[in-house]
Amino acid sequence: MLGGEVRLADLPLREDLVGKFPYGAPQLDVPVQINTNENPFPPSAALVADLTESVARAAVDLNRYPERDAVELRTALADYLTRATGVVLAAENVWAANGSNEILQHLLQAFGGPGRTALGFEPSYSMHPIIATGTRTQWVPCPRRADFTVDVSAAVAEIERARPDVVFVTNPNNPTGGSLPLGDVEALVQAAPGVVVVDEAYAEFSDRPSAIRLIERYPAKLIVSRTMSKAFAFAGGRLGYLAAAPAVIDALLLVRLPYHLSVLTQAAALAALRHADDTLGSVAHLVDERRRVSKSLTDSGFSVVDSDANFVLFGPFADATAAWRAYLDAGVLVRDVGIPHHLRATIGTDADNDHFLSVSERLTDLREETP
Amino acid sequence: MLGGEVRLADLPLREDLVGKFPYGAPQLDVPVQINTNENPFPPSAALVADLTESVARAAVDLNRYPERDAVELRTALADYLTRATGVVLAAENVWAANGSNEILQHLLQAFGGPGRTALGFEPSYSMHPIIATGTRTQWVPCPRRADFTVDVSAAVAEIERARPDVVFVTNPNNPTGGSLPLGDVEALVQAAPGVVVVDEAYAEFSDRPSAIRLIERYPAKLIVSRTMSKAFAFAGGRLGYLAAAPAVIDALLLVRLPYHLSVLTQAAALAALRHADDTLGSVAHLVDERRRVSKSLTDSGFSVVDSDANFVLFGPFADATAAWRAYLDAGVLVRDVGIPHHLRATIGTDADNDHFLSVSERLTDLREETP
Repeated sequence: MLGGEVRLADLPLREDLVGKFPYGAPQLDVPVQINTNENPFPPSAALVADLTESVARAAVDLNRYPERDAVELRTALADYLTRATGVVLAAENVWAANGSNEILQHLLQAFGGPGRTALGFEPSYSMHPIIATGTRTQWVPCPRRADFTVDVSAAVAEIERARPDVVFVTNPNNPTGGSLPLGDVEALVQAAPGVVVVDEAYAEFSDRPSAIRLIERYPAKLIVSRTMSKAFAFAGGRLGYLAAAPAVIDALLLVRLPYHLSVLTQAAALAALRHADDTLGSVAHLVDERRRVSKSLTDSGFSVVDSDANFVLFGPFADATAAWRAYLDAGVLVRDVGIPHHLRATIGTDADNDHFLSVSERLTDLREETP
Repeated sequence: MLGGEVRLADLPLREDLVGKFPYGAPQLDVPVQINTNENPFPPSAALVADLTESVARAAVDLNRYPERDAVELRTALADYLTRATGVVLAAENVWAANGSNEILQHLLQAFGGPGRTALGFEPSYSMHPIIATGTRTQWVPCPRRADFTVDVSAAVAEIERARPDVVFVTNPNNPTGGSLPLGDVEALVQAAPGVVVVDEAYAEFSDRPSAIRLIERYPAKLIVSRTMSKAFAFAGGRLGYLAAAPAVIDALLLVRLPYHLSVLTQAAALAALRHADDTLGSVAHLVDERRRVSKSLTDSGFSVVDSDANFVLFGPFADATAAWRAYLDAGVLVRDVGIPHHLRATIGTDADNDHFLSVSERLTDLREETP
């Protein structure tokens, strides 16, 4: 193969990337795929038809660059957030990008970077430290309690000590599932000297009010990120967004690559937003299924972390990696998130969940017996 | 408006972004838009139909994340490059991203960054220094001659002096239009201590052989970037790509955001590639029109830089910004690229070009008379 004789070690790769591995959960063709917290229900036929028609209309101009600031899409996202939270937002309050990962990268390019620090409460979304490192922002991990909750007074003390430029609060938290009450989020915001990014990727699955309600009080500090990958069942469409004061969006315009959102992405996301009520109709059912899965796992003798999201973290296994492999051998792809003795399972379709639960019952011998 | 009382200056923005302005040509609704080097011919009805059908098929799985490494798309891009250049490439030789800007960002994240330098021959594509700065790579400008050609021996000397980690060679060059013979590109590659990125965004409009032919000889150094935004008439679809040794792609996997290419982007770009022969049929006509436009401008007394691309740089104007405004008032959006006394015009449809040329004739009084 052309150039096949050259190895990565022969290239002048940045020193801090040497020895690293690409991020990403295994993409395996397995009957029950419950490893990446996707919504298991495909888009409705009506949405597919609307989206297809929108794309067909947009495609006749594909030789032209997209509208660079995606104002129509940002307006639709603002309208959705206004309906969902009761807080009135305009397009100027919203930014959009190719997945929430790109949203977080824009934020760290603007408010992090070399000589700056970002703090997060671990274990949490593993892309936070990865994107921090990618933007040369120093990562400051702040541990959660053994039960994965945040000790708010310890967290405030750590923020006051470390004075991070960016604080990440994943709420509900991934991969553990629990969430902080708004008052606790506010305590962290008050303590933070820089910006606070509340990552609400799983907000639609939670009953708690959104931190968007706090933006009015902390407009120079508080940023709330969201995604269409989870409740919106739009993971393949790659659309992340955030809500903040308009000045924050002005800052992100300085770091975004021009024309970052394609004509197709803008058209497809607008179609998905027109069908939001229908798509989000699956949320209540997934929450019911989360309760059923949690109870059944508990009844089988597992310990399940309280979840406010569309997944559950459960265990304890003597060896989580061996247990992950045993699930895979039984046709179920769950996630080994690197938390010892635990695995994470997304809430799937009813049939997915049935299959997962019946395999779980068979695997109880892999459990680590608690004293 | 929510948070409207906060100003950018109230935010803890990175110091090096303070006072900067967002990149981007004006997006104005004007009869003749010849400012961003788009292909003026829209996709064929057959391509729109194929793309729409592909998107419809892909949309039923939009709740699932995309195939992360886009292997099918990279295979199709490798096949296209093999046909276009005669150099046999495989998927492992190709990387793809949301526009060539993201390609360049991935390259600078892997091979540039803090403490490293990137060199380019100016004036050239203005995103090279912008993305370098965005990744905290120090930019080393190396001037072209007054006629915008590269003085190769001076360039080699500057590369040997500055020892940049990354060298950019835009070929054909944007915004000036000329290109370097392959032997000159090879001289720069030989001199470079790090990687050389030959940006061939406009390669399809040039008769010169692609630098892809040199990868076999310099697999640890040479990277050739391309885009579907120009000849492929796919600017709205946002698809950039590159050809290199497989180890280079291994390096980029360490810095790309996971799932960076949506299901829709992958499906639409595959459809566009299936219709490549048809779409690229417009290239010969645009090259003919470039010759006609250049000759007509010359006949009107303008000086036109020799172009190997789908645009021409011309002048001299006493005041390029005033001339830009005069064209705009006449319904023609050209580009003020910041080169004193010059403007850049994309080759449009025959009617666009006629309109542009007739306005140009009327604006000869804005010319700066050369002695």
